Amino acid sequence: MSSSLVRLPTSIATVSLSGTLPEKLEAAASIGFDGVEIFENDLLTFDGSPADVRRIAEDLGLAITIFQPFRDFEAMPDPQRARNLDRAERKFDVMQALGTDLVLVCSNVSPSAIDDDARAAADLVEMAGRAARRGLRVGYEALAWGRHVNRWRHAWRIVQRAAHPALGLIVDSFHTLAVDDDPAGIAEVPADRLFFVQLADAPRMALDVLSWSRHFRNFPGQGQLDVTGFLRAVLACGYRGPLSLEIFNDDFRAAPARLTARDGLRSLILAQAEAQPSDAPPMLPAPPVFDGFEFLEFAVDEKARESLAAFLVKLGFHHAGRHRSKDVALYRQGRINVVLNAEQDSAAAEHFQLHGPSVCAMALRVDDGERALARARALLCPVWQERIGEGERSIPAVRAPDGTLIYLVQPDPSGRTIYQDDFELEMDAGDDSRLDAIDHVAQALPTGRMDSFVLFYRAVFGLLPEPVWEIPDPYGLIRSRAMISADGTVRLPLNISESRETATGRFVSAYAGAGVHHIAFATEDIMAAVAAVAAHGGTILPIPENYYDDLAARHGLDDAFLTELRRLNLLYDRDDAGDFIHAYTESFDDRFFFEIAQRRGYRLFGAPNAAVRLAVQAQRREAARAAARFAAM
Amino acid sequence: MSSSLVRLPTSIATVSLSGTLPEKLEAAASIGFDGVEIFENDLLTFDGSPADVRRIAEDLGLAITIFQPFRDFEAMPDPQRARNLDRAERKFDVMQALGTDLVLVCSNVSPSAIDDDARAAADLVEMAGRAARRGLRVGYEALAWGRHVNRWRHAWRIVQRAAHPALGLIVDSFHTLAVDDDPAGIAEVPADRLFFVQLADAPRMALDVLSWSRHFRNFPGQGQLDVTGFLRAVLACGYRGPLSLEIFNDDFRAAPARLTARDGLRSLILAQAEAQPSDAPPMLPAPPVFDGFEFLEFAVDEKARESLAAFLVKLGFHHAGRHRSKDVALYRQGRINVVLNAEQDSAAAEHFQLHGPSVCAMALRVDDGERALARARALLCPVWQERIGEGERSIPAVRAPDGTLIYLVQPDPSGRTIYQDDFELEMDAGDDSRLDAIDHVAQALPTGRMDSFVLFYRAVFGLLPEPVWEIPDPYGLIRSRAMISADGTVRLPLNISESRETATGRFVSAYAGAGVHHIAFATEDIMAAVAAVAAHGGTILPIPENYYDDLAARHGLDDAFLTELRRLNLLYDRDDAGDFIHAYTESFDDRFFFEIAQRRGYRLFGAPNAAVRLAVQAQRREAARAAARFAAM
Repeated sequence: MSSSLVRLPTSIATVSLSGTLPEKLEAAASIGFDGVEIFENDLLTFDGSPADVRRIAEDLGLAITIFQPFRDFEAMPDPQRARNLDRAERKFDVMQALGTDLVLVCSNVSPSAIDDDARAAADLVEMAGRAARRGLRVGYEALAWGRHVNRWRHAWRIVQRAAHPALGLIVDSFHTLAVDDDPAGIAEVPADRLFFVQLADAPRMALDVLSWSRHFRNFPGQGQLDVTGFLRAVLACGYRGPLSLEIFNDDFRAAPARLTARDGLRSLILAQAEAQPSDAPPMLPAPPVFDGFEFLEFAVDEKARESLAAFLVKLGFHHAGRHRSKDVALYRQGRINVVLNAEQDSAAAEHFQLHGPSVCAMALRVDDGERALARARALLCPVWQERIGEGERSIPAVRAPDGTLIYLVQPDPSGRTIYQDDFELEMDAGDDSRLDAIDHVAQALPTGRMDSFVLFYRAVFGLLPEPVWEIPDPYGLIRSRAMISADGTVRLPLNISESRETATGRFVSAYAGAGVHHIAFATEDIMAAVAAVAAHGGTILPIPENYYDDLAARHGLDDAFLTELRRLNLLYDRDDAGDFIHAYTESFDDRFFFEIAQRRGYRLFGAPNAAVRLAVQAQRREAARAAARFAAM
Repeated sequence: MSSSLVRLPTSIATVSLSGTLPEKLEAAASIGFDGVEIFENDLLTFDGSPADVRRIAEDLGLAITIFQPFRDFEAMPDPQRARNLDRAERKFDVMQALGTDLVLVCSNVSPSAIDDDARAAADLVEMAGRAARRGLRVGYEALAWGRHVNRWRHAWRIVQRAAHPALGLIVDSFHTLAVDDDPAGIAEVPADRLFFVQLADAPRMALDVLSWSRHFRNFPGQGQLDVTGFLRAVLACGYRGPLSLEIFNDDFRAAPARLTARDGLRSLILAQAEAQPSDAPPMLPAPPVFDGFEFLEFAVDEKARESLAAFLVKLGFHHAGRHRSKDVALYRQGRINVVLNAEQDSAAAEHFQLHGPSVCAMALRVDDGERALARARALLCPVWQERIGEGERSIPAVRAPDGTLIYLVQPDPSGRTIYQDDFELEMDAGDDSRLDAIDHVAQALPTGRMDSFVLFYRAVFGLLPEPVWEIPDPYGLIRSRAMISADGTVRLPLNISESRETATGRFVSAYAGAGVHHIAFATEDIMAAVAAVAAHGGTILPIPENYYDDLAARHGLDDAFLTELRRLNLLYDRDDAGDFIHAYTESFDDRFFFEIAQRRGYRLFGAPNAAVRLAVQAQRREAARAAARFAAM
């Protein structure tokens, strides 16, 4: 096994990106791809010649790695066979004008195709011969739904039988893994016979493979196929050509091309690093080891600071200090630190301008901030350094795809905390805290952006995606997927709504983008914690009686316990590992709310109860609206 | 076979509608449903007691037809068996408070369930006995993915074996048809043993049946299952209970509840009418027999009238008359009539206010206007009568779901045309028309509304849906489905875009709703027609050279023909039945455009070329935007 650390050239098919052909090329180049596959339809609809495309690509420093696809070629009866060879000559003209030497022939899907490898090989030899006379090459790829040839080994047997130097094999991770074919044998293909490699991932779906491929492919690391294993086999054979992304995805077709291109290149960098042999030096710095959340930071103005501070105090937080040089206040409870940032001319102020009072940053405790930052940089993340006062701690930060800052806080060897460095702390007035830590921070994402955020948290921070939950809001379905660190101390549920009428959809519209919509605090004694909130004048979201009647019927809880749940508006769930009791606060300014949660071994997030919460929130919104109409009468 | 014309009570499950429980009930009642199924989750999340729900339903005149679902009941080992019976008692409490006597038990999906019909029957007898003591009944339904019981016949065998008067069978068209089970035998079930019937349709999908059921069900007539055949068997057994819609659909969850409810009731009325025995008198007036488009009407103001008239003249139309009493102009060519309506205080003026210059009405030639109108009324369509002047023709109209008026014009026995009645016509100045008729009128629909429009055109007018085409716009995928009259003279492609960035998506946003975005005129001589447009100063959308290079390679067209296509910016397609040559005009005010088309036996709409058109339109939009930026510098 070779253990070289060669970075292979990166490439992306134009069909993976949205926009006109020049926009696609510009996006791929600006993000840093080495080349592009020209997908034929993008050329056909382009209002310029193939030579123009070549010039644009050259100006952008992009290679044209391949022209594709050439369909339904091999093993056709005459007269189609002759017509196909004519067609090939015309496409060779286009390739020469484009300045690419390679064309992708995908295995024939026509009902007229003949099931005869010798015939297929002979046709490919004829095509390769004609290509060779022009200095061009032909790559042959098995489509998963090819009529007779639909496995890479079969395509490889035909290429071997043809034995023409201008004919080689092309493999695609989707076509291999979607049909549960074993890619391991690719390691045995001579590197000079493997002309091109395409990579795509996909979520596992019980859908016909053609529809699955055409609509739901995504970038390596975004789906559930073993693209790493596939790529390992490719690297092991000694292949040194481009790794090219060919993604058909309805969301990508609609997303801004640069966002998609960035995700694509990030996925390729990660996939290559993960596919390195285990004895090779790592291609990327290791992801951080986490130790939970260090703090959460809200962007506020003076008015919002006052009301949010009052809200936090009702939850049992106390004012713990003021920043030495900035208009920033610290609130604390247990190990939870919440920072309210009203500093002018800061990242928080910018965030406030755009989104109003909201979480503008979260800080995660990591073992090594510099290593984490180096990994983030290598994975194309913009990093951020807030200006600091003298003697204050420099905390590096990464920008998440929605603009939220993620600070990476490394424990100081001296044992001093960032709060001791940066804040004038108040004397600690005895701790009657009921809330101990941040359990999870849930974000709402714009439609179509789930895969992008999953890749970001997975690649940059090594968080692992949980299965998708579907949660009915009264006005549409929400899809929720949590990203969790290996040790479980960082948990980030990501929520998405197709509809703009759901609470999540409204949040995204109101916030002009993604953002934190709720924060769950962990407690060891939910009954006491929730009672304390009520005692401080806080409001816990009321839960309908019917919920408790059903809970009794479903779980056979004892009556005393059930009475307490009911009295305190607590929700209950169970999984294989334990149970979960939680409650929600009313929402702050219709923007975000808090959750108080006690886990007893339980690993999930109470998704069945989220539907109850969403319905209650919707009813309250409706009631408030009706009251406002009444008041206006 | 009974041939009675009893209309069965109509019902809808609350899960089929969006909103809070009171909103769902209000929507179902306002549209005219007789009853509702209370879906348990809607009750659990409702902030009021079951007795409150009963009161709301009673006030609205709605029966609560059933409470559902009760899951994972039968054939469980102890202690679950005992727990399940306790759970049943609790749910009986709820049912009594709701005021419904029927609960739906769906077949067990638990891995713990025992494969033993005797055991299942015994458990159901026990439950039915307990129900009977309270005057309640239990209905047993086979889920398509039930662990051991997943066919209606199997559920029926268990019900027969149980032989308890308070236990009956429930059948659901989806669970039967999705697994290709034969519903015919339902006709043999004694009517008093069939306790309830649920109806749902779905598009055919190669997806696992659970995901298919949970996300893609739709109303009868919107999908591809033979719900009519299913219902025929149900009616044949003599069942006289409610027909109830139970639809899990992501789009329905997000759509306004009243729109969904109207579609649902429309679908039930249609399904019942279509399921009547062939020897029974028809339950609905027959759909119209069409003879093409009579006219198209644009809402304009004075300015738009002038510019649109100039646009039409370039296409070869001439001014043919003025309305006798209104500010309405008639333009003509061949058999095509285009009306420009600038009348104040009219439906057109209202349309203009909302949508700007656009098609506000289309008129279809029908065999019998009154019969068509009666059918539309029976299918819950609002009808419309424009005020008319003395001696003018009264033309009835139906409002399409997007507000567009559809006039139904019946030939006058005297042979007088509506134009002779209503217009002061100009002398016909010899006809050098190149365009003969309206070939098709394409509409853009808001996201999630395809099924609604398909049902409208299918139910009210008897148009038949064609398969769905997927067309890539540079900024997202478009789905297109044509509705066509039996004789082929009325063709209405419906287009939908998930993304708001596509031409279709932008159109829908700009227009505040659905609307006509292009109109295709038929010609017998496309070359002459397009040359004439250019001669009149009209602009045909330029088509990229690359398109023609590929066309040559694909179809092997002869060089002279290809040269003409290229010269005139004509597009070409072929199907099994013939070929199609067409061209697009530039767009009017970025709102709509025209197509000129020659069919030579061809039956489709040139979908492969629509992608080329969309790309060119996008490039022109980008170029115009760049020019505007440049001008503003």
